Amino acid sequence: MTKINENYLKLKGSYLFAEVARRAEVSAAQHPDRELIRLGIGDVTKPLAPAVVSALHSAVDEMGKAETFRGYGPYEGYAFLRDLICEHDYQSRHIPVEADEIFVSDGAKSDCGNIGDILGTDNVVAVCDPVYPVYVDTNVMAGRAGDMDENGQWGQLIYMPCLKENNFTPLIPPKCADIIYLCFPNNPTGAIATKKELTAWVEYAKKNDSLILYDSAYEAFITDPDIPRSIFEIPGARECAIEFRSFSKTAGFTGLRCAYTIIPKDLKRGGASLHDLWFRRQSTKYNGVPYIVQRAAAAVYSKEGGAQIQDTISYYHNNAKIIREGLQKAGLSVSGGINAPYIWLETPDGINSWEFFDLLMERAGVVTTPGAGFGPSGEGYIRLTAFGETSAAQRAVERISKAF
Amino acid sequence: MTKINENYLKLKGSYLFAEVARRAEVSAAQHPDRELIRLGIGDVTKPLAPAVVSALHSAVDEMGKAETFRGYGPYEGYAFLRDLICEHDYQSRHIPVEADEIFVSDGAKSDCGNIGDILGTDNVVAVCDPVYPVYVDTNVMAGRAGDMDENGQWGQLIYMPCLKENNFTPLIPPKCADIIYLCFPNNPTGAIATKKELTAWVEYAKKNDSLILYDSAYEAFITDPDIPRSIFEIPGARECAIEFRSFSKTAGFTGLRCAYTIIPKDLKRGGASLHDLWFRRQSTKYNGVPYIVQRAAAAVYSKEGGAQIQDTISYYHNNAKIIREGLQKAGLSVSGGINAPYIWLETPDGINSWEFFDLLMERAGVVTTPGAGFGPSGEGYIRLTAFGETSAAQRAVERISKAF
Repeated sequence: MTKINENYLKLKGSYLFAEVARRAEVSAAQHPDRELIRLGIGDVTKPLAPAVVSALHSAVDEMGKAETFRGYGPYEGYAFLRDLICEHDYQSRHIPVEADEIFVSDGAKSDCGNIGDILGTDNVVAVCDPVYPVYVDTNVMAGRAGDMDENGQWGQLIYMPCLKENNFTPLIPPKCADIIYLCFPNNPTGAIATKKELTAWVEYAKKNDSLILYDSAYEAFITDPDIPRSIFEIPGARECAIEFRSFSKTAGFTGLRCAYTIIPKDLKRGGASLHDLWFRRQSTKYNGVPYIVQRAAAAVYSKEGGAQIQDTISYYHNNAKIIREGLQKAGLSVSGGINAPYIWLETPDGINSWEFFDLLMERAGVVTTPGAGFGPSGEGYIRLTAFGETSAAQRAVERISKAF
Repeated sequence: MTKINENYLKLKGSYLFAEVARRAEVSAAQHPDRELIRLGIGDVTKPLAPAVVSALHSAVDEMGKAETFRGYGPYEGYAFLRDLICEHDYQSRHIPVEADEIFVSDGAKSDCGNIGDILGTDNVVAVCDPVYPVYVDTNVMAGRAGDMDENGQWGQLIYMPCLKENNFTPLIPPKCADIIYLCFPNNPTGAIATKKELTAWVEYAKKNDSLILYDSAYEAFITDPDIPRSIFEIPGARECAIEFRSFSKTAGFTGLRCAYTIIPKDLKRGGASLHDLWFRRQSTKYNGVPYIVQRAAAAVYSKEGGAQIQDTISYYHNNAKIIREGLQKAGLSVSGGINAPYIWLETPDGINSWEFFDLLMERAGVVTTPGAGFGPSGEGYIRLTAFGETSAAQRAVERISKAF
């Protein structure tokens, strides 16, 4: 008889964003005449940059001609793209990463989820709380999380609360963690990590032979030159960290799907190279990103492409400013939204997250994401995103100000 | 200390096609003036159909405009594509599959590999021998294969030899298997399964509550109307089978990446719906296929798109015929290549696979794939593919005829 992976049965309810979408649908049906402003799911709204569109058209034409048609590509991505990533995102910033340490993929979510394939199920995992649900759910699926307790916490995970008193950055846990997920600029809080904080993490990981899984999907939103954009800016990180990056938020690729993961060749555990294990995983279970999408990603690094995506990032930054300042003016307590596209709003009067989520939708017609959906310490918070239209951000702020 | 997944260390050498590519590179360097004819890896060579190219251009334009831009799509694929797949590939053939049982993905390889996520590691797995290496390697990675013995067989797998005396189709194993991988038309042998044979498998699976993982990535190459194109043509299969399909070989999408997997809602194990578990897996670890690629796949079902891809399939069929008949004329023993793009060649005089692979490359400048790379019972065979140029297939046959 076929046995299922019983760990899946431990997962409660539906995936957070699916539940948000479900409730929004119900609300929309109840108020058919009211515009629902969506500041919930972190999806971009601006179209692809003209340079990207143009690169796509050219690549599509190549695929339509026998002489230039491309079939299976390299599992790890085409050299033309890996070289550009390496040069622009790392070497020009004097960050020690080589092109052959870059694996191009269809999403940071896929890589963050699939990376567990090459890791033992007996590792102790530490996650921030609140946290991007994918880190937790994929570890539940793999059997590393144990069982859920009455507080909604998984028995075998180490939770690192990210609280207001600590600027929403995690403290190094007293217990030893084998794998630590870090995400800066943070989803959902919009918090950042300083060089000093990341150095402490790298030292911790090196001392314990732990592995840092560093998600920097939002690095393009960093404006402060003193904030690290990559974990590999920290000396020693090449021996203890993997970094995940994405074109999704940098260049509006959420519907186009392209990301990349850096696994330094110096990174070894149990005598094995994690770079080699990941290549084995990808070459066995994956066939790479469409050629046309890799050409689109390459266009992001062209002079005009770079300027165009920077304009869009500035547009989203301005939205973040409008939301942050508007909510502050309305007397609400907010953080994030400066070096990040996420604003982290404290619910007033200690109302719980899902209740305030429903209230915001009911009274202001604004869809957000309840902080509790990101973990127990997210309770009492709401996440808002800057990826919408500026006019929508303005209307949302006005409506919320009136309603509360 | 971070523990790796020790199962990865059990995998020997490099992935078959990587080794083939490596040897071909060495040969090309040794004979810089000789054209190397590649009949090895199963990659297509014909460009995308004009209807597909046109759909891609339109979709790219949509992505470049704010009004029509698409961000994250449904994890399981857009309804427009799932409806077309359902109508054309199933309902028009009276095969009982519903649109909401279809999961669109980036590749049958990804799905065949990732499906193991939702299945327990304690299942007994049966594979054909020879076999597409992905089925075996992904089970080694998951810990279902045990250790490799001195014959290159994994201790916990059930091997189903596909031998000449049985038309290269597997016999039902005496031992009970929880999961059975079947692939028809077969890669690598080009063998097909009759309705009677598949009925026996479905009955076996139903009796034992086993699960059939049915890979029909090559169904478009079936010309004989009596040969089933889908496992769901067999009564009862909805309660015991998952089917994998792909646009890779059907429409030349190896570089564009689109496939789909059918998990019937009737399929339950341990009280859980495998459809629901897979949705949970995909929504947590995956973000879907690029919108533009889904539009491209939809164009395959248009009247002109359908005619264009049929022309290409006929072209490859003709190559298969040239190779099959040419080799037969040269006195070699071949099978496959009629309802499949693969030709299975018996090595002459009992020469072993890798040796004959090297000989074919050395004496005829033809790159093939050694049968032994697909499993112990593939020893003594060579796989040739029909995906190249007709003129190349002709030259390859001439060169082989001269050389042997």
